This record gives sequence, C-alpha cells and structure tokens, in this order.
Amino acid sequence: MKNDRLILVSNDDGIFSNGIKALAEVASEFGEVAVVAPDRQQSAVGHSITINEPLRAVPFKLESGLMGSAINGTPADCIKLAHDQLLDRKPDLVLSGINHGSNAGINIIYSGTVSAATEGTILGYPSIAVSCVEFGEDADLTGCMEAARRAISFVFKNGLPAGITLNVNAPAGPFRGIKWTKQADTRYTDEFEPRVDPHNRPYYWITGRLEILDQGEDLDVNVLNTGYASITPIQYDLTAYRVFKEMSKIDI
Amino acid sequence: MKNDRLILVSNDDGIFSNGIKALAEVASEFGEVAVVAPDRQQSAVGHSITINEPLRAVPFKLESGLMGSAINGTPADCIKLAHDQLLDRKPDLVLSGINHGSNAGINIIYSGTVSAATEGTILGYPSIAVSCVEFGEDADLTGCMEAARRAISFVFKNGLPAGITLNVNAPAGPFRGIKWTKQADTRYTDEFEPRVDPHNRPYYWITGRLEILDQGEDLDVNVLNTGYASITPIQYDLTAYRVFKEMSKIDI
Repeated sequence: MKNDRLILVSNDDGIFSNGIKALAEVASEFGEVAVVAPDRQQSAVGHSITINEPLRAVPFKLESGLMGSAINGTPADCIKLAHDQLLDRKPDLVLSGINHGSNAGINIIYSGTVSAATEGTILGYPSIAVSCVEFGEDADLTGCMEAARRAISFVFKNGLPAGITLNVNAPAGPFRGIKWTKQADTRYTDEFEPRVDPHNRPYYWITGRLEILDQGEDLDVNVLNTGYASITPIQYDLTAYRVFKEMSKIDI
Repeated sequence: MKNDRLILVSNDDGIFSNGIKALAEVASEFGEVAVVAPDRQQSAVGHSITINEPLRAVPFKLESGLMGSAINGTPADCIKLAHDQLLDRKPDLVLSGINHGSNAGINIIYSGTVSAATEGTILGYPSIAVSCVEFGEDADLTGCMEAARRAISFVFKNGLPAGITLNVNAPAGPFRGIKWTKQADTRYTDEFEPRVDPHNRPYYWITGRLEILDQGEDLDVNVLNTGYASITPIQYDLTAYRVFKEMSKIDI
C-alpha cells in the first residue's frame, strides 16, 4: 500500500529551504515522493498564477538529498504543472510546506504555501499545508514534522471531504498537542514604513503588526499562542452562506 | 452627503485599462474619487502582496481624465498603501475593476481584482469588485457600469455585514437583470500547452478550459450564461464550518 502511493510536495519558500526537505522526509514515510516546487522564494504570492510568461521545469538534485523539478513560477503554478504535465500518475496526496512562518489568521489569505495546497484541492486531491510559526530558516522543525505526520495519517485513514484543505501550523520545537481550530479574524496595522531614497523620492516598505480581532479558544492564532499545534479545515468556496439568505431577499 | 464621501478605486488591469476609467466614472456619481492602482497589468496575481521590494506611489494624470497614484505593486498592495499612507481620510467605499474578464467560479481565487476588494474588507471598508465577462479591452462596459451603480447604491443604502465583500460580474453590453448568486464549483482542465524552444528545451504556456462541476440556477457562472448580471457575497474567513463539527470530533 505504502509503495503504491505517490505524494506531491511543494512549498512557497523554494527548493533550497529546510522546510521542504523536512516535509519531503515525512512524506517518504508514506509513499513515493515527487517534489515540484518554486526555484526561488515565493512568499506572500497568495494564489497567484503565471499567465504572461511560460513556465519551465528544471530537474534538480541537491546535496541535502532533495530532488525533483524546480519551476520558475508560483506555488499554484507548481501544482497545476505537476498535475497536467509532469507526473506520470495522479498523486494520492498533495503537501505544501513546511513554511517558515505562521499561516494562521489572515496570513492564510496571503500565503503561497496554503495556495499550493488549495490548488491541490481544486484539482481533486486530498491536500495539506504545513507551516512553522517561527520564521527562521534554522527553526527546529521536529514538532512541525510530527504534526504533518499526524495530519497525513488522519487523511489516509479518514479521507477528506471534497473541497476541503487541511491547514496545519505548529510551533518550533515540541508542541503540547494538536487542536482543531477556526481561522481567527486578524489584520495587519501600521503596515508601511515610509523612507526617502538618495534622490529624495519617497518609497514604502511593507511591515506591520498582527492585530487579533476576536478571541476564542478554538481559533488558530490563539491555540498556537498556548503551545499547541493547530489544524483548520478550510475551503475555496468563498460564498458567504451565513448572510446569503438575508441579503438575497433585497432587490438590487 | 455625496460630496462628503471618499471612494477608493483600484483594479488589476492597471491604470491604462478602460475598465478602471469606467468604474471611476460611476464612482464619481457617488462622491470624491481617489484612484490608487497598479502601474501595469497584474491579472491573476490573486492576493499577492509585495514584501521583497519597496513600493512607490507615482502621481499620474491620463489624457482620458483618469488621475491618481500609480503603484509598482499588486492590487492588494494598492489598497494597503492607500489606507496606511496615501489617503488623508478613510474611504467610505472601496471599488475594484471593472476587470476585463469574468471573476466568477474558481476565477475568484486567482483574481487580483477581487483581492483588492477583499483587502478593503479586511481593513474594515465596504468593498465591491466588478468584472466584465468579456476579455476584450474594447468590450461595451455600459451594462457593467450600471451593475456597479446598483451595487454601490445597495451598499450605501443597506450597508454590508462585517467581513463580507460583494463580487459583481456582468456581461458586455446590456443585461437582463441582476441576480444574487453563489460561487460555482469550477476548475480548469487541459491547463498547459507544452512547446519546445529554439534550443530544444521544453516550456509550458498556461491555457485551459473552464469546467463547471455543479449546476444550479443560483450559481454565478450559470446566471451569467443566461444574460444576467451576478452579485455574490463572499468572505475571507476560509474556515470550512460545514464540516468543522464532524471533523473536530476525530482525534488527531
């Protein structure tokens, strides 16, 4: 069973990150691994796809042992290209990560890591995004790897409903347990730092501070702050069903 | 009342598109207009934001009469920068479009146009995305302008619930009416056209055919196919509430 499985692994930090090596290592415990990932850093690209440039798929083999195809595109591009052109059979699972940095709260919206997994879901594959709360490339990923392992086991045992992606976040180092969570309502404030260049022209660097707008023990950001790992089922159907009935009564 | 209002207008096709000129024209019927938009084509960038390059805001005034700030970034960048640095007061409404091309079904996920409006919602402003089903730059936008006008009137009359963005699509030319819709489940198939360059190396162009996975009279794609305009309330909370209760019973 294990040897029959094909697991597609991607990320948004690019093929040289420690995170994708760690995730491919976990994936190899469950089946054959195909890595198709961006050839460079693609953080915060969201669900961007490349339409004005052609894509290339360059085979690579790193000293770290990681090998696969490096793509000059976004995380979503990688999954689409793997599905449509590069893989010789359909994957049983799509994994994205391990991202260096949290993808909880509003970060989910901006995340290339999550978008790769979402693209897997759109194409009909069970898909999981995995992120480490700590940004540093040298963060201890052993806990995140264990959280990934448990999420993968969950999916192979229980399956995933159509249209649902699992979004997993874990602290660096060990964690206290994994909790099912909802996306916290958060946003960034004080977002830009204005500067002036040597030619006296203004420019702006994005920065910002994450503001948590709601409290609740079952919210991803809050669970992570207590040392637990977080797992959130998310969907790409953006319809606001909770207001649809009321709003659609009003003529427009 | 009208003169007190400030309406922020952006898009993803860039400041030279006919669509943003048309939308700014409609906006000017409701209040003062501030255009903050990408300096170039940014289609399909999704909710991408720019973190590795600084942003600049260059004042522009086009022969068409459109004026504002041109940004070397994504649609989401434009809204963030306008909110945090460029506007001297808070806008009463954020508009994005008119996009040249449909943003219904799965296109919502890839759309820079929708992401600009979503960013407005995240920042706490009532926000509307408007798209024309026809791609051509010379499409007749009069119907889309009327759909935008009615959506704006709706928002100023009824308000919008927190966290909700309106996603409006309309055919080119006249439409039969506007219907409240849900996001149709669609996806692209046959996505890439493989080619070989003069140096005998393969490359891939994205292309694809939209496959409609579910039928239903209240779905955006289907409503548009019958000559109606479509308006969908969407949300940035991606939590899959419909499966949360069942899934969260299972230990992980």
